[in-house]
Amino acid sequence: MANPLKAHVDVEVRYFETDQMGVVHHVNYLVWFEVARTDLCARSGYPYAEIEGLGYRLVNTELRARYQHPARYGDTVRVTCWIERLASRAIHFAYEVHRDDESLATGVTEHIWIETATNRPCRAPQEVRDAFRKLAGLTD
Amino acid sequence: MANPLKAHVDVEVRYFETDQMGVVHHVNYLVWFEVARTDLCARSGYPYAEIEGLGYRLVNTELRARYQHPARYGDTVRVTCWIERLASRAIHFAYEVHRDDESLATGVTEHIWIETATNRPCRAPQEVRDAFRKLAGLTD
Amino acid sequence: MANPLKAHVDVEVRYFETDQMGVVHHVNYLVWFEVARTDLCARSGYPYAEIEGLGYRLVNTELRARYQHPARYGDTVRVTCWIERLASRAIHFAYEVHRDDESLATGVTEHIWIETATNRPCRAPQEVRDAFRKLAGLTD
Amino acid sequence: MANPLKAHVDVEVRYFETDQMGVVHHVNYLVWFEVARTDLCARSGYPYAEIEGLGYRLVNTELRARYQHPARYGDTVRVTCWIERLASRAIHFAYEVHRDDESLATGVTEHIWIETATNRPCRAPQEVRDAFRKLAGLTD
Repeated sequence: MANPLKAHVDVEVRYFETDQMGVVHHVNYLVWFEVARTDLCARSGYPYAEIEGLGYRLVNTELRARYQHPARYGDTVRVTCWIERLASRAIHFAYEVHRDDESLATGVTEHIWIETATNRPCRAPQEVRDAFRKLAGLTD
Repeated sequence: MANPLKAHVDVEVRYFETDQMGVVHHVNYLVWFEVARTDLCARSGYPYAEIEGLGYRLVNTELRARYQHPARYGDTVRVTCWIERLASRAIHFAYEVHRDDESLATGVTEHIWIETATNRPCRAPQEVRDAFRKLAGLTD
Repeated sequence: MANPLKAHVDVEVRYFETDQMGVVHHVNYLVWFEVARTDLCARSGYPYAEIEGLGYRLVNTELRARYQHPARYGDTVRVTCWIERLASRAIHFAYEVHRDDESLATGVTEHIWIETATNRPCRAPQEVRDAFRKLAGLTD
Repeated sequence: MANPLKAHVDVEVRYFETDQMGVVHHVNYLVWFEVARTDLCARSGYPYAEIEGLGYRLVNTELRARYQHPARYGDTVRVTCWIERLASRAIHFAYEVHRDDESLATGVTEHIWIETATNRPCRAPQEVRDAFRKLAGLTD
């Protein structure tokens, strides 16, 4: 059974991220998801910037988010990301945002691999696939 | 059967909205959803800015988006918004983003009414509820 | 004496652009400047997307902005852009943001031409330079 | 002579902050300035969130930025902020953005104190003024 690596990133709320409700605008949580996903990918040994350098991209095809409690300017939130599902051509990442022990939001983003040269769906190169299998906790 | 009013807003892609993949970053579609939702609410006779002035807010509790094709700098996209479900304390808005006849993305956002004074879930005031029932095409 | 063409773009304030002061965050005015600059460039006959396609970029080297009055959600502001100074390798654009007759902000951005292939400063291609001279009102 | 305290904040570039030139969009440096300003204010003993709680705001009246070299996704940049000028009703903050020893950008933002209740320019409360005088290195 999968036991995925979880990346944890602490994010200080930026004033720019608030809106006139006095809390963080909900769209910014998705930017934070991406910050944690960047951190998780780096832990594979293939930082996402390098993956792009190899000629591949992870393109977002779907996202879902649920909001329980708002984050505020002055908060530092912890954003957690892990691989929830790994297929040969697709990855689903899951996310949680906490302030201390309180869950503020959860989410999922689904991505497919695209080869930059052809702009077509593809499998990731073998060494990246192996690295992501480890991230996903699929190590047999 | 419901026949909701659909708001259509034309949005020119901003250079700021692109990312290094050379296309619009997926998070910005959610900002466009909000632009179309603003336009839809205005058609109720209660622009959202006025609703806030009355002491109520529509707080996002969930969102989902699917991406089919990327928008690019130079594109003008059409963003459509309508009410998909209307309950006494919640509204689900649906969205489509098109470039000419091509669907680029679809989405749903779910919101609950919050009374600003108490910061608690509530029903919308009667006149706003009536106006939104018309928007939703529930006119009996 | 120069009599530059002025591009006027009407921008509806987006909820996302507000912050917890209840007004538009000052950084977003710079995004609006860019929206108006895009419109001005298109009037040259060389939309900026095409200029990039020709292998050139206008890279921002300096910006200044002054803020007189805040814009708010619910406002539609008019953003005006024109060429204030045109040199062989640089352009200075000027901007004004109005709400009705009230000036909300003014600004200047300075850019240099970069050839994408070499990533080095350059002159714009002759036909683009001629088109921008007309924009700048330098028609002799 | 003034010897201001300098706040240093390390900021990892977010993918969202890139644009189709393949580098960080210039507007995001101004968001980073604000992140460093938040950190500097916190060092006064009056985090900006608390200052707002006291009924005062620091409203941006002017900004200037110069760009020398672009930041890229994958970079961690160091953003430095200090008080360059302190008057009874205004503060000028200065900023530098470095990647290792290389200066990427510099800037200045000017702010005035506004009393929230009246929405009018004011002096900061005495204890905040004293704290900011220390930040500015004006300790006589």
